[in-house]
Amino acid sequence: MQLHLSTWAEVETYLKRSTGIIIPIGSTEQHGPNGLVGTDAICAEVFAREVGKVAEAMVAPTLSVGMAQHHLAFSGSMTLRPSTMIAVIRDWVASLSRHGFDRFFFLNGHGGNIATTTAAFSEIYAEASLAQPGHNLPSVRCMIKNWWEAPSAKRLSNSLFPGEEGSHATPSEVSVTFHAYPEAIKQAEMSPRVAPFGGFTDAADYRGRFPDGRIGSNPALATAAHGKTIMDAVVPELAESYKAFIGA
Amino acid sequence: MQLHLSTWAEVETYLKRSTGIIIPIGSTEQHGPNGLVGTDAICAEVFAREVGKVAEAMVAPTLSVGMAQHHLAFSGSMTLRPSTMIAVIRDWVASLSRHGFDRFFFLNGHGGNIATTTAAFSEIYAEASLAQPGHNLPSVRCMIKNWWEAPSAKRLSNSLFPGEEGSHATPSEVSVTFHAYPEAIKQAEMSPRVAPFGGFTDAADYRGRFPDGRIGSNPALATAAHGKTIMDAVVPELAESYKAFIGA
Amino acid sequence: MQLHLSTWAEVETYLKRSTGIIIPIGSTEQHGPNGLVGTDAICAEVFAREVGKVAEAMVAPTLSVGMAQHHLAFSGSMTLRPSTMIAVIRDWVASLSRHGFDRFFFLNGHGGNIATTTAAFSEIYAEASLAQPGHNLPSVRCMIKNWWEAPSAKRLSNSLFPGEEGSHATPSEVSVTFHAYPEAIKQAEMSPRVAPFGGFTDAADYRGRFPDGRIGSNPALATAAHGKTIMDAVVPELAESYKAFIGA
Amino acid sequence: MQLHLSTWAEVETYLKRSTGIIIPIGSTEQHGPNGLVGTDAICAEVFAREVGKVAEAMVAPTLSVGMAQHHLAFSGSMTLRPSTMIAVIRDWVASLSRHGFDRFFFLNGHGGNIATTTAAFSEIYAEASLAQPGHNLPSVRCMIKNWWEAPSAKRLSNSLFPGEEGSHATPSEVSVTFHAYPEAIKQAEMSPRVAPFGGFTDAADYRGRFPDGRIGSNPALATAAHGKTIMDAVVPELAESYKAFIGA
Amino acid sequence: MQLHLSTWAEVETYLKRSTGIIIPIGSTEQHGPNGLVGTDAICAEVFAREVGKVAEAMVAPTLSVGMAQHHLAFSGSMTLRPSTMIAVIRDWVASLSRHGFDRFFFLNGHGGNIATTTAAFSEIYAEASLAQPGHNLPSVRCMIKNWWEAPSAKRLSNSLFPGEEGSHATPSEVSVTFHAYPEAIKQAEMSPRVAPFGGFTDAADYRGRFPDGRIGSNPALATAAHGKTIMDAVVPELAESYKAFIGA
Amino acid sequence: MQLHLSTWAEVETYLKRSTGIIIPIGSTEQHGPNGLVGTDAICAEVFAREVGKVAEAMVAPTLSVGMAQHHLAFSGSMTLRPSTMIAVIRDWVASLSRHGFDRFFFLNGHGGNIATTTAAFSEIYAEASLAQPGHNLPSVRCMIKNWWEAPSAKRLSNSLFPGEEGSHATPSEVSVTFHAYPEAIKQAEMSPRVAPFGGFTDAADYRGRFPDGRIGSNPALATAAHGKTIMDAVVPELAESYKAFIGA
Repeated sequence: MQLHLSTWAEVETYLKRSTGIIIPIGSTEQHGPNGLVGTDAICAEVFAREVGKVAEAMVAPTLSVGMAQHHLAFSGSMTLRPSTMIAVIRDWVASLSRHGFDRFFFLNGHGGNIATTTAAFSEIYAEASLAQPGHNLPSVRCMIKNWWEAPSAKRLSNSLFPGEEGSHATPSEVSVTFHAYPEAIKQAEMSPRVAPFGGFTDAADYRGRFPDGRIGSNPALATAAHGKTIMDAVVPELAESYKAFIGA
Repeated sequence: MQLHLSTWAEVETYLKRSTGIIIPIGSTEQHGPNGLVGTDAICAEVFAREVGKVAEAMVAPTLSVGMAQHHLAFSGSMTLRPSTMIAVIRDWVASLSRHGFDRFFFLNGHGGNIATTTAAFSEIYAEASLAQPGHNLPSVRCMIKNWWEAPSAKRLSNSLFPGEEGSHATPSEVSVTFHAYPEAIKQAEMSPRVAPFGGFTDAADYRGRFPDGRIGSNPALATAAHGKTIMDAVVPELAESYKAFIGA
Repeated sequence: MQLHLSTWAEVETYLKRSTGIIIPIGSTEQHGPNGLVGTDAICAEVFAREVGKVAEAMVAPTLSVGMAQHHLAFSGSMTLRPSTMIAVIRDWVASLSRHGFDRFFFLNGHGGNIATTTAAFSEIYAEASLAQPGHNLPSVRCMIKNWWEAPSAKRLSNSLFPGEEGSHATPSEVSVTFHAYPEAIKQAEMSPRVAPFGGFTDAADYRGRFPDGRIGSNPALATAAHGKTIMDAVVPELAESYKAFIGA
Repeated sequence: MQLHLSTWAEVETYLKRSTGIIIPIGSTEQHGPNGLVGTDAICAEVFAREVGKVAEAMVAPTLSVGMAQHHLAFSGSMTLRPSTMIAVIRDWVASLSRHGFDRFFFLNGHGGNIATTTAAFSEIYAEASLAQPGHNLPSVRCMIKNWWEAPSAKRLSNSLFPGEEGSHATPSEVSVTFHAYPEAIKQAEMSPRVAPFGGFTDAADYRGRFPDGRIGSNPALATAAHGKTIMDAVVPELAESYKAFIGA
Repeated sequence: MQLHLSTWAEVETYLKRSTGIIIPIGSTEQHGPNGLVGTDAICAEVFAREVGKVAEAMVAPTLSVGMAQHHLAFSGSMTLRPSTMIAVIRDWVASLSRHGFDRFFFLNGHGGNIATTTAAFSEIYAEASLAQPGHNLPSVRCMIKNWWEAPSAKRLSNSLFPGEEGSHATPSEVSVTFHAYPEAIKQAEMSPRVAPFGGFTDAADYRGRFPDGRIGSNPALATAAHGKTIMDAVVPELAESYKAFIGA
Repeated sequence: MQLHLSTWAEVETYLKRSTGIIIPIGSTEQHGPNGLVGTDAICAEVFAREVGKVAEAMVAPTLSVGMAQHHLAFSGSMTLRPSTMIAVIRDWVASLSRHGFDRFFFLNGHGGNIATTTAAFSEIYAEASLAQPGHNLPSVRCMIKNWWEAPSAKRLSNSLFPGEEGSHATPSEVSVTFHAYPEAIKQAEMSPRVAPFGGFTDAADYRGRFPDGRIGSNPALATAAHGKTIMDAVVPELAESYKAFIGA
């Protein structure tokens, strides 16, 4: 079920059988020569939608702009400051816990979100942890799940794109978006074929090290068919993770 | 053009011919017995997408959770605190102005967003206004445009739903979402047929006054066909507004 | 009754018969060639004082610096950032609600305050709306009332200054201040006689469009006598608005 | 000169001969059985107005709600949180320094403001102190001056109210307000005649220790005539302090 | 007892006999030619440790970076913005009051901390003062104690360093650090022998007035032996202050 | 070199040969039946001090209270909210970068700090990444290094405490503190011998799952001798990490 396509009465009915919800979090940032600026948000959204069907879970709207300060030297990239993103996640969770949701499964499409999202969870928990006895704060449980760390995602990237998966603008994620939006498939020359690896700090530093935006990847290998293969394998695993989480 | 479906190089190319961008802002909140929780975000998103085509304008991702504190007594409603929403809009505009965008057309789907979004614009302008000479802050221009205030939107609501449009969970907005998502069309009894009008403060107050969530409306009149009629009429007007804005 | 001229015991007595309070909010900003920097604060203050007498209502101190970032290119103008002003209004309302006040009638003298003040109300309501059952947050009701939108204010500006009222540094508001502070009446040449109309963004943009600070007005028409006429007509209407509000 | 009663052009002219400004800061809080809730704001305002005349200095509007959390158990008392007050002072100083003011003389009417105002100065200075070379932040100088610490204020309180001045709701400050607002002179029994001394923490603690709000004082001794005596003696001293400050 | 060297069970046992705690707060900032950057933190820490022994009190970790914006033009100096320091003190007190501590004795080593720490106390108290009846906020009591204002500290500085104590980088505080860290004793020429006195604003202003960092002092007089003398005299007095505080 | 034991002139001299600095970050939180509340801060501090000697690096004061909300149900535990900790790290880095430091090596003693510290780095970088061309923000590089992930730390925990290291209140960290503070060695019965493993959310949840505070560990195995063995092995590896970092 998608929250956006439900009435409030339907949400109320859902809450009688489950208090879990999937929240897709992505990013809006450059993804190399042929990757879409929305890659991470699209991946989070389509995985969440399919996982929601399999697990019969409610799916919240996608948090489509995340923490991506390091990509800002490439046109179209957007970021929330970590302090802003913490406030946003706090407000989303507070809103939903007002209705009785208490298991928040953040299905994540972007590595840069992990630290800030985890810090946001602590900010939320800290309210209850610092409160005196007698408080009426809700007891919530939050989890962040990176789709690309599902066992089958790792296995497939190894078999489909051996040595060319990399860590940003990967053929896996680009494939998923090509599968989701075939009308937006792009072609681009990759030079060098496989991008360099490395660390980075701010946007200027990043662009100096990774001139076309990729890290360690060759997304020219991406195809919509590979995207379908990946989704078919990964969705059931994520659904199992979700079910284990809400049962915990 | 949708930012999410573009590569960074395509965004860079776009910026050579235009520095304007459309940002759809919606809300995630109850919309009465047959309206979708995502109504306002969906409307903003589909109007923005079509206006973007007509005006050949870049369209940012949708800010799908807005300021909707008054709806929180109905399941599924979500809100950002105004202070959080100001921080979010500030970060979005700062990110995009980093690339050279300087005309921000917020296409709005939710009345509750107006005050906070306008305050956010002032927060952004204040940085430059308070700065000493010699600052390097960008000169940006922001505008909020409510789709339901387009002349044809008002005309059509009068002719299609005379006396039953209301101000929340209106047949107009519900029609647009039914046109956009025919698979999510809902049926519900309305009792009374037309909901009461009035003001409100917080969520408990709102629910006490408007027990099924509607204000002044009869969304049982909504149809996908009406939604198409509305979109066909309103999109060109919004496109003209956008063009006038970026030419200003 | 003015809060500033009461003892705490008198306030306690007042609260036994009413929980309403009038809060004048103004601004400190340029008002063209002959208008006072304090025009908006003075108008809010003198209207509130007279309305308080008529309606037998408590009147809080004047919030004399509001949201006026767009005027900062003219000497003497002051602003609160919207985020600061939200915090101030939150603290004022929290303080007064601690004593039992629960109807807050913000009598406003400045258009630039409207969005931020409305956002502040939502910030306050959101605390209660987001809270779990069992919270002890007060139930408050806030309203912003612009004196210049009272029916008689509009009628008089049309009859006294036809076509020359404008929207900033208007002859109406300047007249009210001349009535209130006859010792501060100023003379100045207006060139052009009636200032241009238009929109604006930040302070530099504003000054570029409106070189002497006025928008659409000819405040050379202002007189203390007109100010008295306006006050005599408007005060009873505002008093009725207040009474309707606290009875709601 | 009062900023509120000047035009922007007059402020611009003033800035050619001086970049100093007096900012009265007061408080809105209980002042015992016969003291006005506005005592501290009234004192700051009337001292500032007179000092402005003597020193030919610009006087800003009064910051009439300060840091008074400890008085909130008495009706009518209002407070800004320290963090809010720091933001307000930062915005006021930033606004005025935009025009060229760089000497800020905070004429203070309330002991509870001292720590927060001093912290606000450090917050402002810290911006420049933390900035890298090449910044364009203004170089400003702030000072807080408590009127009751002027030598003549101490001398007069000793001679007029020996042993009964105390530290809150003092006969000196109440006298100044009776002189300023003779129409608001109040009578009240004091029991005990002289209130107890002591420290305090939050509002409940304060009220437990000082049941009628006074600390160490007997404000039944206050008269308008004493208020005039105090003002006549203190104003010239404060004017000298101001002149020394802007010459520093 | 030092909190850092206790187990949680030992802290639990301590709380059965006392709810008081000593929190050393210092600073990390230049201390002239021969003073250590950590002087204020070291003094606060060693005084707190010894006072803890005498008074059998729990001693928290040292807040070693305080409010020192004015020293930032000298290498190694660090500061918290006042707004940050208020948040830190709020979190420390909230954490400890969670366990039942309710008497917080801030043993201070740095004059620049006083205003901000006092403002932080008000920020904490304001939460309770602004809350409606029925809140569950703890009732806490905070105090700041400057070690150099103990009677014996003043007496010894007068007798050991007559006319050369000054107010920053004093021979007293440097002596205490030399006693605490004999391995870090430094030698440096003082020119002039006694530094000038005066006020200051931001870091650039400070360095312009006090080129080697000292104010009014001659720390060449500092010795470890003097440090021991000072500690031996001051510790018992501070212990008495602490006991009086927790008994209040 | 320790910053606290240096003069500002010595820091200035150091900056001529290196712009790197080690910042120990720890935590103040329960560490099971025999572990010290200060375990994580002590470990970070003593490792940093020794690494500083080997690498001839400047060592900042220890940030001794970190993000430990989950431990607050055990007496003595303290936390910064993530949003506070981000502000603290931002101020520390801003202060030090003012002097020319630009390589910040955070030597970490607490797993709970990782997400928030990483988010803080992004908050710092975001300032530069969002700034327009021409800004004068410094280019800094931050790194967090967990001492227990050094290869020899993992190897030794496996060989010294096979299967009993766990993840909180580990025999390794307790051994290091016993080596550092032999006077604070504690004895306690462990029941069960090895604590359970698992996840957690807020403080109440944590205490429910881990009744004596340990996770997966048997710290009864800790000895000061093991602590020395660990330090002797780990310090050189951390020194190499630091050197690699500042050379990057």
